[in-house]
Amino acid sequence: MANIYFDYAATTPTHPDVLAKMLPYFTELYGNPSSIYKFAQGNKTVLDVAREQVATAIGADEKEILFTSGGTEADNWAILGVAESYKNKGNHIITSSIEHHAVLHTCEYLEKNGFEVTYLPVDSDGVVSIDALKNAIKDNTILITIMYANNEIGTIQPIKEIGIIAKEAGVLFHTDAVQAVGHVPIDVIDNHIDLLSISAHKLYGPKGPGALYIKKGVKLKAFIHGGGQERKRRGGTENVPGIVGFGAAIERATKFMETESARQLILRDYLIEQVLEKVPFAQLNGHPTNRLPNNANISFDFIEGESMLIMLDMQGFCASSGSACTSGSLDPSHVLLAIGLKHESAHGSLRLTLGESNTKEQIDQFVEALIKIVARLREMSPLYEDYKKNNEV
Amino acid sequence: MANIYFDYAATTPTHPDVLAKMLPYFTELYGNPSSIYKFAQGNKTVLDVAREQVATAIGADEKEILFTSGGTEADNWAILGVAESYKNKGNHIITSSIEHHAVLHTCEYLEKNGFEVTYLPVDSDGVVSIDALKNAIKDNTILITIMYANNEIGTIQPIKEIGIIAKEAGVLFHTDAVQAVGHVPIDVIDNHIDLLSISAHKLYGPKGPGALYIKKGVKLKAFIHGGGQERKRRGGTENVPGIVGFGAAIERATKFMETESARQLILRDYLIEQVLEKVPFAQLNGHPTNRLPNNANISFDFIEGESMLIMLDMQGFCASSGSACTSGSLDPSHVLLAIGLKHESAHGSLRLTLGESNTKEQIDQFVEALIKIVARLREMSPLYEDYKKNNEV
Repeated sequence: MANIYFDYAATTPTHPDVLAKMLPYFTELYGNPSSIYKFAQGNKTVLDVAREQVATAIGADEKEILFTSGGTEADNWAILGVAESYKNKGNHIITSSIEHHAVLHTCEYLEKNGFEVTYLPVDSDGVVSIDALKNAIKDNTILITIMYANNEIGTIQPIKEIGIIAKEAGVLFHTDAVQAVGHVPIDVIDNHIDLLSISAHKLYGPKGPGALYIKKGVKLKAFIHGGGQERKRRGGTENVPGIVGFGAAIERATKFMETESARQLILRDYLIEQVLEKVPFAQLNGHPTNRLPNNANISFDFIEGESMLIMLDMQGFCASSGSACTSGSLDPSHVLLAIGLKHESAHGSLRLTLGESNTKEQIDQFVEALIKIVARLREMSPLYEDYKKNNEV
Repeated sequence: MANIYFDYAATTPTHPDVLAKMLPYFTELYGNPSSIYKFAQGNKTVLDVAREQVATAIGADEKEILFTSGGTEADNWAILGVAESYKNKGNHIITSSIEHHAVLHTCEYLEKNGFEVTYLPVDSDGVVSIDALKNAIKDNTILITIMYANNEIGTIQPIKEIGIIAKEAGVLFHTDAVQAVGHVPIDVIDNHIDLLSISAHKLYGPKGPGALYIKKGVKLKAFIHGGGQERKRRGGTENVPGIVGFGAAIERATKFMETESARQLILRDYLIEQVLEKVPFAQLNGHPTNRLPNNANISFDFIEGESMLIMLDMQGFCASSGSACTSGSLDPSHVLLAIGLKHESAHGSLRLTLGESNTKEQIDQFVEALIKIVARLREMSPLYEDYKKNNEV
């Protein structure tokens, strides 16, 4: 039985056209870009082509793009780098309570090392409170780090508003845009973004490479010390095939974004509408409209998300219950708790993230399966039993 | 004209068999190992297979292998991690003056942040002074980090002796084994190694992945904060295809090591002998016998290494003048200066590192070309002109 994949926010396949562009760099054009002979210098050039492709996708200059080993390293570098380079100016960082663990755990690390971190609340749609942000800024604030769009509930933040506030306060603004790049249009200039994290494998590129956009003028020391790669700011032989694939993937994603995101948005709304209509005691999490075009996150009362995932898996559906990175943990998602869900609702949530392969037929198949799975799980649920007794359903 | 590649220490091609094993994980088996459905859980399993393959190659347990984004990250993690986790015990680190920049620049970073670093001298063969090491250990010493084999001159260090000294002193021992793994037999237990860095692309694996061996019991906090990957010690979605390739490559390299290293050693000695015999004013750098089986590093008086490289490149020979990472810099190699070469000899050095594709015929072609190139460059050299005048050559 072929799988039906609804977990594109966890990772995407590398597109075959992207892989085809990468292949020569494994076995034929394998030179180290730091070597001076022509055979290897060609690989220096292809890194610059990829750099330009990444820069173009977010309205940056190619000199402002530095390659990393993924979104997580980019987040770490941005936050730890600002903390180190600007510690003479202050030791206060502002973030939100719904960030990815790459940001949250980095902030927690800094809290143990002399920094103060404010975790802004979000409303029930998952939107960061702008008032709280304004009130949080102090003389010693050096960084605001707020994600572009949430990986679990898809809510897109008021990035431009945040950028303007940061700019007016003279505070650097970093955004983890791992879920957004390639899915919604992004312009770092227009949004006053100083630092922005990207990951290749969320936009049909390979797992491995990522990038950090560092606006010209922002001082950020090396995070990984070594050779002179990435303008002496990120040591280590470059992942040439991966970076070639990253560039090709981001160029491709940007090219097809308008039509493909519009297509996915229609599918997403159809999926949400069908589930909410056909499955009782279900509610959408995240902003109803200002959300990633491919994200649906729905809570089902009385049942466990993990059980749903397992039963969906048995029928070939790949979905998630919160961030892929939090699986294996029994704690409910910090994002769902932050938007005000009760523990039991947070436990009973399902994240469906669409991608290029998904069709309306797949959604119909999924909804049909889901109806039965939810009904079956509720039959076994003592919580539902109690509810029925108390409400005479 | 096909290139003749003598720069395997800079990087190796990914072996076609290795690439073949990686390919399904880009486009077909693309699941995120953190996802709980079967389709993705299979990728968690392949990571563990690769972990076992890496562990086996160095005599470690698979639980002691953590994947990184390469040798440089592994070096950074080992050194910065020990510095952070053991700072209550002391702030003194011992290294050598001929380490790779991934180690040296990390140590220099620590020196700016309250740590004291001793850079041990080496003898004219590039062997770290054991007496100096013994004398350098103090009550506040927390780490000895000395490379297994040097990337420029190939000298293999007395690792077991160092390991025993470290163990007796109760000091952790890290070794950057990026150039050694897959080329010479390594056993972390026998050598009393606590931390060891590996890179996939030096042993016919892909650029990108690396690993840090962390001996059971060594406390090392996360270096990159994020999701729960790598037992919560290295956040970020794993580079699944890369790690699959790393595992396959290291298994393959270990399997063929004995025969292939023996073959390369014969070629290397033939190369050295031919060059020293046929090119006047040339000398071998590094230990004559206790060196990597594929490394030849030779200095030529009166000429510039870079000019040699360019002229060799014009004839299709890929070689290096010191570490690939230091190219682009006009400073002579810190390694060649540390073994006592004068600036002018260090500038006139050539590193030739052999690999699986090289043959005796290629070496004959190379030596023939080199004789003419050196002669031509000396004809243009004012230094040689002076020498001839003064010595009536």
